[in-house]
Amino acid sequence: MSEYRGYEGNSLEFLKKNQIIVGDSVNILTDITYSGIIMPRYEHSDDKHIVLKLKSGYNIGLEISKINKVEKIQTSKKNTETESKVEKITGLPKILLLSTGGTIASKIDYRTGAVTPVLTAEELNSSVPELAKLANIDAEVLFSEYSENIMPEHWLKIAEKIKEFSKSDYTGIIIAHGTDTMHYTSSFLSFALAGFPIPIVLVGSQRSSDRASSDAALNLIGATKFITENNTKGVYIVMHQDENDNTIACHFGTRVRKNHTSKRGAFQTIGDNPAFIIAENQIQKNMSKDYFEKNEFQPKINLETKVALVKYHPGFDPNMLNQIIEMGYKGIIFEGTGLGHIGKVMYENVKKANEKGVFLGMTSQCIDGRVRMTVYESGRDLLDLGIIPLQNMIPEVALVKTMWAIGNSKNNEDVKKIMLQNIASELSN
Amino acid sequence: MSEYRGYEGNSLEFLKKNQIIVGDSVNILTDITYSGIIMPRYEHSDDKHIVLKLKSGYNIGLEISKINKVEKIQTSKKNTETESKVEKITGLPKILLLSTGGTIASKIDYRTGAVTPVLTAEELNSSVPELAKLANIDAEVLFSEYSENIMPEHWLKIAEKIKEFSKSDYTGIIIAHGTDTMHYTSSFLSFALAGFPIPIVLVGSQRSSDRASSDAALNLIGATKFITENNTKGVYIVMHQDENDNTIACHFGTRVRKNHTSKRGAFQTIGDNPAFIIAENQIQKNMSKDYFEKNEFQPKINLETKVALVKYHPGFDPNMLNQIIEMGYKGIIFEGTGLGHIGKVMYENVKKANEKGVFLGMTSQCIDGRVRMTVYESGRDLLDLGIIPLQNMIPEVALVKTMWAIGNSKNNEDVKKIMLQNIASELSN
Repeated sequence: MSEYRGYEGNSLEFLKKNQIIVGDSVNILTDITYSGIIMPRYEHSDDKHIVLKLKSGYNIGLEISKINKVEKIQTSKKNTETESKVEKITGLPKILLLSTGGTIASKIDYRTGAVTPVLTAEELNSSVPELAKLANIDAEVLFSEYSENIMPEHWLKIAEKIKEFSKSDYTGIIIAHGTDTMHYTSSFLSFALAGFPIPIVLVGSQRSSDRASSDAALNLIGATKFITENNTKGVYIVMHQDENDNTIACHFGTRVRKNHTSKRGAFQTIGDNPAFIIAENQIQKNMSKDYFEKNEFQPKINLETKVALVKYHPGFDPNMLNQIIEMGYKGIIFEGTGLGHIGKVMYENVKKANEKGVFLGMTSQCIDGRVRMTVYESGRDLLDLGIIPLQNMIPEVALVKTMWAIGNSKNNEDVKKIMLQNIASELSN
Repeated sequence: MSEYRGYEGNSLEFLKKNQIIVGDSVNILTDITYSGIIMPRYEHSDDKHIVLKLKSGYNIGLEISKINKVEKIQTSKKNTETESKVEKITGLPKILLLSTGGTIASKIDYRTGAVTPVLTAEELNSSVPELAKLANIDAEVLFSEYSENIMPEHWLKIAEKIKEFSKSDYTGIIIAHGTDTMHYTSSFLSFALAGFPIPIVLVGSQRSSDRASSDAALNLIGATKFITENNTKGVYIVMHQDENDNTIACHFGTRVRKNHTSKRGAFQTIGDNPAFIIAENQIQKNMSKDYFEKNEFQPKINLETKVALVKYHPGFDPNMLNQIIEMGYKGIIFEGTGLGHIGKVMYENVKKANEKGVFLGMTSQCIDGRVRMTVYESGRDLLDLGIIPLQNMIPEVALVKTMWAIGNSKNNEDVKKIMLQNIASELSN
C-alpha cells in the first residue's frame, strides 16, 4: 500500500504537511472534531478532501480548507508492528496457502480497508484467528494480480508450484485468488494436475475486506474445514452459497461460473448442486463419483493460447471467423445458440477452418443444458463441417480445456479424443 | 415439406416405386407386419432404411431389403385436406400472428412430426382449437427460418411489418419465432418500435411438435390470453415458466435470456421475476412501471451491424481487438469479468479504439448483477480509456441496442446518451 494511496495535489500536500499517512488514527478539528482513521481514496478523486473512517464504521470526506488542526493519535506503522505472531499447535493438519492476488489475498486491514498485497501466515492468522485452531498454515505469495490480469502464464506457474507438493505432508492446498477469473484457473488446474493426491481449493472474496459484509474470512474458514475434514481429491472453488453467512458452497472446479457481479453467493455450479455444502459444522457431500477420471497423478503442464471463444449472434460477421483462421488459431470454441447452432452464413469459413486442421468445438451460450446437434438440420450440417459437440461442457471450461488439450497433444485427432474424455468432472450426466 | 424429405438413393427409389410419400399411413410386411406412418428422416441417413412411426408413438427403421410388401392405408394428402376451416366468432378480440419460422411456426403435424414451415390461421387453429375461442387470429407468414439464421435484416422486416399496424383494430401481435435468438429479436423490436400502442409477444417452443412434451400449443394459448386479458404495452417473450404445464412466464423482451438448451422453462428474466405469470386462468402482474420510457410511438427502424461482442478471458489476444478496429467496427460491447473488467493487456488497443471514435460499452459475463467500474483501480482505468459502463444491461441486449443506437444516431455522443437511457426496461433497478 502506498502511504498516500489515491491522494494527489492539494490533499496529498495536506497529508505530507501534517505528517500523516493512510492508516493513521487522528483527530481532525473543524467546527466539529472528528476521530477516525485516514482512508485511502478509491473513487475518482478530487484533491480537495481527505477521507476519514469514523468509529461508527462510516467514511466521511472532509474538505481540507475547512480543517483547523490535525492531531495524530496512533501511527499506521505502529499498528502493523503490534500484530502478534501465530503460535502453531502441534498435531494439526498442515495446509499450504498460495496467494495469487485479489481481495482475499490482500492483507485484511479491517481498520482502513487498505489493500496490501502481502500475505504471510502471521498476517492471515491474526486477521482470521479461527484458522490457527483448524490447521497449521504455511503461506506463500506467488504473485499479486487482480484476477482479470491473471494470464495463462500464471496458470502454468501455479500448476508448477503445486506439482512440487504431490508427495508432501500437506493435507490440502488453498489458493487465494481474485474471483473474476477464478473458474478459468480452477479449470486449468483440474486438467493440468489431474489425479493430484490432495484437494486443491480456490478461495476468493466478493466484498472487499474493509466492508462489514466481507466474505473473505468465512470463505477461508470454509476452505480450511473442507480440507481438514474431508480427503476428497479434486479442484474446488469454495465461496458463500448465498447471502447467508451460514452456508459455504464447494463447487466442482470445472462446473462452476461466476454468475453475479457482486453477490456473495456469486458462484454457481451449473446444472447441479455444489459438490459439497458446508453448513455450520457439517459437511454435506453431494458428489457421487470421483472428481478425476484417473487417480494417478500425471501432470501435463502445457498449453496453447491460440484458441478463440466465438460467441455467435445475429449479425456476427463471418469474416471475423476468417480473421481468426488467418491469425493462425489452432482451436475455436463456439458459443452457439440453443442446442449448438450457428447461422448458415458461417458455414463457408467453418469449412475452411476445418480444412486447415483447426479444432472446432461447440458449446451453448445458454450455459446450462447439453448441446445436441442431431435434432435439427442445421446442427447436422455443422457436424458434417467437422464441429465437435462438447456435450454439457461450460463454454469457459471448453476454452481452457482446448488450450490445454492442444498444448499436450501431437495432432488434431488426439485433441478431439481428449476433448470428449471426461477428465475432471467437466462433463456431467 | 418435401414428399420424400431426408430420403435418398435406394430408400428414395423404394418410396417412389411403391408410390408412397412421407405422411402416408401404411402396412409394411416383413417377417412381421408393421402399421404406421412414413416419417421424414432427420438423422444422418443411410439409404437402406425407411422410418415408420408406429401407433405406439415409437419410430422404427426398417431395412428395405427385408420388406416384402407395402400396403397404403391412407395418403398423406388426404389427411391434410380433411382439416377443418376455422369459424371466427364475432365479438372476439383480433390478434395478428406473424410467423418467422422455428418449431412453433411449423405446421403442427402431430402424426409424423414433419416440419412444414407454412402457417395459416386454419392450420394453426385446427392444431390448437382453444385459440379460436379466445381470439380471431389473422396469420401471416413473414419468412421461415431456423432462428440461428435470423439476421438483423430480418429484424428490420419484422419491425417494418408491425409498424403498419400501429393504428389497426388488433388487440396485440404475436410473433412465432425460433427460440435460439428470440431474445435478440425481442430486444431489437423493443428499441425500434418503442412506444408501440399494443403488446407485441414473441412465442416459441422448445420441443418439436411431434413430441408429447411439446410446449407449442400452451405457449401460444398463454400468449393469446395475455394479449386478450391485458392491455400492457411492451415487447414480451411468452414461454413455459418451468417444466410444469400450468405456469407460463411472460418475460420483459429486454431482460430475458435463453438459459437452458432444452428445458421447456429455458427462458429466464435476469435478476428479477418475469413481468407476468400466467397460471391457470389468472394473470399475475409483477412489473411495477411501464415497459417503455415514453409512450408515444416513434419508430426508428435502422441499425448498424458493425458492432462486436468481445468476451474477455485469460489468454484473450489483444491483437483480436486490433483486428476489430481495423475492420472498421463502430461499436464494441465488452463482456468483461466480474464488475466489468478486462486485463491490462487490452488497454493499448482500447485506447486506440476510443481515439478512432468506436463506441465502447462494458457489460459483465456474469450476466446477472450490475457493472461497477469505480470499485477497483482497473475499472477506473477503463473508464479513463473511454469505456461506458452499461449498468445491468444483459450483454446480448447491449449488443443489439448498440447496433440500433448507432444506426439511429448522428455521432458518438448521441450513441453514448442513448445507451445510458432506459428506453424499454433494458435497465432495471
